[in-house]
Amino acid sequence: MSGRLFVIGLGPGNANQVTPEANHAVAEAEFFYGYKPYVDRLELKPHQIRIASDNREELARAKEAIVKAADGHAVAVVSGGDPGVFAMAAAVCEAIEEGPAEWRDIDLQIVPGVTAMLAVAARAGAPLGHDFCAISLSDNLKPWDLIELRLLAAAGAGFVIALYNPISKARPWQLGRAFEALSAILPGTTPVIFGRAAGRPDERIEVASLAFARADMADMATCVIIGSAETRVIKRNGKPALVYTPRSATGRRE
Amino acid sequence: MSGRLFVIGLGPGNANQVTPEANHAVAEAEFFYGYKPYVDRLELKPHQIRIASDNREELARAKEAIVKAADGHAVAVVSGGDPGVFAMAAAVCEAIEEGPAEWRDIDLQIVPGVTAMLAVAARAGAPLGHDFCAISLSDNLKPWDLIELRLLAAAGAGFVIALYNPISKARPWQLGRAFEALSAILPGTTPVIFGRAAGRPDERIEVASLAFARADMADMATCVIIGSAETRVIKRNGKPALVYTPRSATGRRE
Repeated sequence: MSGRLFVIGLGPGNANQVTPEANHAVAEAEFFYGYKPYVDRLELKPHQIRIASDNREELARAKEAIVKAADGHAVAVVSGGDPGVFAMAAAVCEAIEEGPAEWRDIDLQIVPGVTAMLAVAARAGAPLGHDFCAISLSDNLKPWDLIELRLLAAAGAGFVIALYNPISKARPWQLGRAFEALSAILPGTTPVIFGRAAGRPDERIEVASLAFARADMADMATCVIIGSAETRVIKRNGKPALVYTPRSATGRRE
Repeated sequence: MSGRLFVIGLGPGNANQVTPEANHAVAEAEFFYGYKPYVDRLELKPHQIRIASDNREELARAKEAIVKAADGHAVAVVSGGDPGVFAMAAAVCEAIEEGPAEWRDIDLQIVPGVTAMLAVAARAGAPLGHDFCAISLSDNLKPWDLIELRLLAAAGAGFVIALYNPISKARPWQLGRAFEALSAILPGTTPVIFGRAAGRPDERIEVASLAFARADMADMATCVIIGSAETRVIKRNGKPALVYTPRSATGRRE
């Protein structure tokens, strides 16, 4: 008999940004699988059980959760932000496709959430106000050449770029290389937003121009948003600048 | 004396997907500006006032709201989904930049929300599980040539593409043209998701392959997600298929 599997987006990390739908799903599940910092965020009842794991173990975690659900339990897999954006929903689908046929019968419910780039953008102004893309800068699951090709294609076509997983101890040079590659086609004045832990007590939002953007301005908890040539900065007295990308575009380079 | 201006994302249209932060902001404001269907969603107290307007009036609406806030009031501008994604936050920033210097002193708070592509993706599986982009298909504020260039650049580089504003009475041919353009570089088997009113009672999620995708499968309330060459479909008995884009990519065409 098949159980239920929720894949839940917990939002940026602030209880105020968790949807009621996510809270309801948490209330219904018995077993909670996820990367430790996300599982630790949950306020659980005594009968609810956490099974935390490390990152880079997404597929194994997904399979373990599905096995538990297929066993008849109500199971949750939790992600920060939105589970569909560089997070657990794709790993769960991948595990279902690879697994035994009965896994397809599991009652699967994916609960969306506010993903990091939206939370960071809201703090900074409206940098994603026009066409944009999201790229994971991690080369664990794709070659660096492909990442660089995508960065250049996106910037060349005028997309604003949100970078997830910009840097880690194991991936120290990629963000610097990305800035370097983008500098060849974007003006040095292009605004770059370093949005760390948006909405959390340790939030830090910094804006630099591309010419002065450095990889050490980001850490694992940072979402980096790189403007297009049309992105603008509005200075304000005694308040952080507003960064926004106008709704209209001509496509011409000035 | 300057008031407060909230720019609030109301999520896809289901009270279960509105964040507490958005509800708190709604509770604090006195005047509510927005496109009529979004303003109509609000449950307001007797002292709270709706000022609804038509779409394509974003900049005028933003200015009117800012004038009211600058007058000392607590004002909200509401958007469906997230206010930073093809919505009011960029119009408000644009108005502030163009307006008198004192508008920059307004206490501006942008409240993020679950944007349509995330809600649709959650219903369909995990189509945005890898690098993706969001493009507004409206050529009201940018030339069609630029839209087509972006579609081809994104698809050519392997991005999944979420299309906002895919079609309307005034823009009947653009979506068909987009499918045609993309068919030149994506396999005919590429999954296309038509996600209408995700999370609302009139929700309808349909999946077609690109070769059979037709513009009349979308309307104004639809977010269209076009997979990459790597996006996969998992058939399930008695349940809708799951569509997902694997977390890993080689960049090689098969």
